[in-house]
Amino acid sequence: MREASEETLTEAVIEKLASCSDPRLQSIMTALIRHLHAFAREVELSEAEWAEGIRFLTATGQMCDERRQEFILLSDVLGLSMLVDAINHRKPEGATESTVLGPFYVAGAPELEPGATIMRGGGGEPVAVRGRVLTPGSQPIAGALVDVWQTAPNGFYDTQDPTQPAFNLRGRFRTDGAGAFHFRTVKPASYPLPTDGTVGRMLAALGRHPFRPAHIHFIVQAPGYESLTTHLFAAGDPYLDSDAVFGVKNSLIVEFRPAADGNGLTLDYDFGLKPAA
Amino acid sequence: MREASEETLTEAVIEKLASCSDPRLQSIMTALIRHLHAFAREVELSEAEWAEGIRFLTATGQMCDERRQEFILLSDVLGLSMLVDAINHRKPEGATESTVLGPFYVAGAPELEPGATIMRGGGGEPVAVRGRVLTPGSQPIAGALVDVWQTAPNGFYDTQDPTQPAFNLRGRFRTDGAGAFHFRTVKPASYPLPTDGTVGRMLAALGRHPFRPAHIHFIVQAPGYESLTTHLFAAGDPYLDSDAVFGVKNSLIVEFRPAADGNGLTLDYDFGLKPAA
Repeated sequence: MREASEETLTEAVIEKLASCSDPRLQSIMTALIRHLHAFAREVELSEAEWAEGIRFLTATGQMCDERRQEFILLSDVLGLSMLVDAINHRKPEGATESTVLGPFYVAGAPELEPGATIMRGGGGEPVAVRGRVLTPGSQPIAGALVDVWQTAPNGFYDTQDPTQPAFNLRGRFRTDGAGAFHFRTVKPASYPLPTDGTVGRMLAALGRHPFRPAHIHFIVQAPGYESLTTHLFAAGDPYLDSDAVFGVKNSLIVEFRPAADGNGLTLDYDFGLKPAA
Repeated sequence: MREASEETLTEAVIEKLASCSDPRLQSIMTALIRHLHAFAREVELSEAEWAEGIRFLTATGQMCDERRQEFILLSDVLGLSMLVDAINHRKPEGATESTVLGPFYVAGAPELEPGATIMRGGGGEPVAVRGRVLTPGSQPIAGALVDVWQTAPNGFYDTQDPTQPAFNLRGRFRTDGAGAFHFRTVKPASYPLPTDGTVGRMLAALGRHPFRPAHIHFIVQAPGYESLTTHLFAAGDPYLDSDAVFGVKNSLIVEFRPAADGNGLTLDYDFGLKPAA
């Protein structure tokens, strides 16, 4: 199309999608172009603002490497990650609510024996975690894989902190015949998202704090069930009401209670999996 | 905010902007979050599609370096660049229409004597370019700076092609007392946008060709006038009706005519500048 004007340009761009052979891609791109153009018209984006946007996106991509995913962080702080999570995981009664994956997951953590600790170095307040993996009808699911990761008490994941050994505070556990798992760890800390990149600078410009309430990440998987990506949040944390990534749900807040034997803390939680469609 | 649901999440994210001290940034981010969330809801974006989007944006940033700006290319092929141009340059009668800057501009090209050639190496069909820089009332503007860049006949800019010397087919010229400039060059070629990056792969997936009609880029500047960023397109080019970046305007299509002395081609065009606000 020649001579596209301010008024006709959006439709001209969308018309070019007519030759796309993938109907789903065509419908995603049609909606993306309409919203992108509507955004630029609505705010009457200046050329300097457009150029700042180009620089921001470029620098965000260039912050990313094997250990750092700044675009996931951006999606998280804009609430997009939680929205996609909500759209894709409308949960039935008895199924645990999901929350964001976040940018710190590392695939391939070692599978450990029941009761093992995931702490490979450093100190912290010991916690014994116990729970079960259940159907929405509260039947045990044996052989489910429980993939766990969390920060050290200094607020850093192993991948952010050269003083921690690889796979510190990461591990995978299998449920037994009663659907039960247990492992040992240390209490996680609330922490700021990395503030040395584009997302940190954006949060500062927006007057937003970068903190997340203390939590332990879980991915729980079993054949025949939807994979569950969630956290357990520490009750009483000062950031529960202002999580920088909007991830907190009341059903995921748990008490770290003093152990009956006086040896550290305990955390008990049962996960409910939704049957696969 | 705790317990944001699929329904309440967008407003929860926007509420966090209340403490932003920059009202313009706040209004841009409010519109951006609303459109980003509306897009995800409208297409019910799946987690796999979200992850593909994260990978695409990350790889787009990582394609960028001092010579390559893949995010500008993305903005161009989605029509965003032309839309921002249209919003920011509503032109009065007598002012030349603008079009996209594109990703191949290099600041600091040498200022050359009137009549000099910008071709520093290689062959091609010689062209003598002549024109004037005028007010909307057709008065000459003396001392205007005319910044020019274009592809070689092989379709590559110097920055894409190690066989071309630096600043090949780039130069800056000043208008004389009659507002006139002239320089020599070779005829540019229609060319594909770089197809070895994320944008090229996206165009292929969308069934779109990556070609732009042959053109010469200009930035024309004079004190007291808005800077003009535009192209002149070669009449008869097969891609005038399907420019991959939607940049063609009828008023910018020019004939490359055989020179009266039989020595190559001539191109004549007068630019009109809009007085600064």
